[in-house]
Amino acid sequence: MQTPSNSCVMHNAPMLLVIDLIGVFVFALAGATAGVRQRLDLFGVLVLSFATATAGGIARDLLIGAVPPAAFQDWRYLASAMLAGLVTFIWYDAMERLRNPVRVFDALGLGLFAVAGTQKALHFGLHPVMAALLGMLTGIGGGVTRDLLLSRVPVVFQSDIYALAALAGALVVVLGDWLQWAAMPTAIAGTLLCFGLRILAMWFHWHLPSAHHDSPDKD
Amino acid sequence: MQTPSNSCVMHNAPMLLVIDLIGVFVFALAGATAGVRQRLDLFGVLVLSFATATAGGIARDLLIGAVPPAAFQDWRYLASAMLAGLVTFIWYDAMERLRNPVRVFDALGLGLFAVAGTQKALHFGLHPVMAALLGMLTGIGGGVTRDLLLSRVPVVFQSDIYALAALAGALVVVLGDWLQWAAMPTAIAGTLLCFGLRILAMWFHWHLPSAHHDSPDKD
Amino acid sequence: MQTPSNSCVMHNAPMLLVIDLIGVFVFALAGATAGVRQRLDLFGVLVLSFATATAGGIARDLLIGAVPPAAFQDWRYLASAMLAGLVTFIWYDAMERLRNPVRVFDALGLGLFAVAGTQKALHFGLHPVMAALLGMLTGIGGGVTRDLLLSRVPVVFQSDIYALAALAGALVVVLGDWLQWAAMPTAIAGTLLCFGLRILAMWFHWHLPSAHHDSPDKD
Repeated sequence: MQTPSNSCVMHNAPMLLVIDLIGVFVFALAGATAGVRQRLDLFGVLVLSFATATAGGIARDLLIGAVPPAAFQDWRYLASAMLAGLVTFIWYDAMERLRNPVRVFDALGLGLFAVAGTQKALHFGLHPVMAALLGMLTGIGGGVTRDLLLSRVPVVFQSDIYALAALAGALVVVLGDWLQWAAMPTAIAGTLLCFGLRILAMWFHWHLPSAHHDSPDKD
Repeated sequence: MQTPSNSCVMHNAPMLLVIDLIGVFVFALAGATAGVRQRLDLFGVLVLSFATATAGGIARDLLIGAVPPAAFQDWRYLASAMLAGLVTFIWYDAMERLRNPVRVFDALGLGLFAVAGTQKALHFGLHPVMAALLGMLTGIGGGVTRDLLLSRVPVVFQSDIYALAALAGALVVVLGDWLQWAAMPTAIAGTLLCFGLRILAMWFHWHLPSAHHDSPDKD
Repeated sequence: MQTPSNSCVMHNAPMLLVIDLIGVFVFALAGATAGVRQRLDLFGVLVLSFATATAGGIARDLLIGAVPPAAFQDWRYLASAMLAGLVTFIWYDAMERLRNPVRVFDALGLGLFAVAGTQKALHFGLHPVMAALLGMLTGIGGGVTRDLLLSRVPVVFQSDIYALAALAGALVVVLGDWLQWAAMPTAIAGTLLCFGLRILAMWFHWHLPSAHHDSPDKD
């Protein structure tokens, strides 16, 4: 299970780490912003930063059997998330004026995590379809956790194309692995596709269809 | 830990898979229906289908150390959940008229998962009491996850006898394993007991007692 | 990964078990009380007792790769949680009058779990900073799970110094491990520091700062 697949070109450990750490920072910004808006105290904001930034990767690592998860093995994940949390806590008003930039960072983090998650799952020998699914989970897991901890329906289930963008980025990685494309360009292409889709979806308010139904009740 | 127990007669892998796949389909129907009612988009409905259908089994597999979980190793779990999600999304009005059948399917899925979860936990050498607990968790985990993702108190904590039915089905499997009954009849008996209890509890509005207390405050 | 660190003096298995079982009992009291207040039925109260009492330790065990988690390997965890749940369910009015004692027990459980969680994480070879983080998670995980299952924002994110007290207790253990202090006094010191901080924070309504910001919107 833990033997790398034979297409090792994709799985560049330092690149994975750098992608992960940037993703952690931008996702932690998004988590900390949500925490400050809910008037959490400093510690709550920091916990939410760390949880938002690492939950997706932790879920992926638990599911593929890579324990302890990277976020608990390497102190730089924690440091990156704490830094983002502190920055947000101290300069919140500036961050609030940067609301759109934060959403842009979030879209970037989504792409980075979807790509890195897919790469790691392939590296652990998962079936390509499942690796893409785990990549998507890595991307959306942080936001879902953030929303669950704040007791609201995860925005990923309701809003513009979000999970689908993550899945698209993940599929690029799976395709590249299958066709033996070079690792770095594939990762960049996957990240950019996810990022672009997400930005365009926000810009043009793209939505997926909802089911049409007559019954007004919710239970 | 990962050596099978010596009562191997119970642990028929193809039978486990078939039980699991049917359970995935009927639970995914229940998850998708809840998603459509909350007006999630197509992707949200599909994610909720998959989560509802597999979360119990994933939790069980993580807890017994069977990683990657079956739901991420075998594409048929995903296919089964996606199919149920699509069917529900497209023919929602028909499903809504089938509301009672959906609840019947949910009761069937509960029994199937409680039985399959218990078998797998025994197979991994857990203590019989804990195996029954994990079987119950396998049965109720999907519904709990669905409700958490929709930001509501899990119905399993409030409604008619639900978790108890799952536990009853799981205990039949544990008992059968102990007394070395044949695998298939034991599995069918456990599933039917859980299913029957659940249906009767819905029909007759059976409840467990709540604690009597004076204080009106909730905090 | 699973080789014990060389400072084995800390990691006394029977002591860990006793600490864990007492922690389980007092946390299960807190979980059951919350369940009765929400008017859950008997089974819901018992499930909430078990979940509150063991979720932190289960999360820790999954993250360090100790599967099946202790709570599923040793029936005494289940028994301890069930006993606390039943006591609460039957004598709820008495427990309600003991509201302050329950909060005192909760503070004690927090300290016990933070200490035991840190010890186990060190035992599994985690980096000291991460071991302290996992100890904190072991302490707060149960309460977070209880609040998630009851569909409310985890109190740990909003209230008086709670997670910080757990972290302080965990850091004592890490420090003691580093300086090779004797196991038992270190564990007691860590537990007492956490317990004392938590009690003082409740008594004096100590809070951590919240971020100051102008925007009144929450989204």
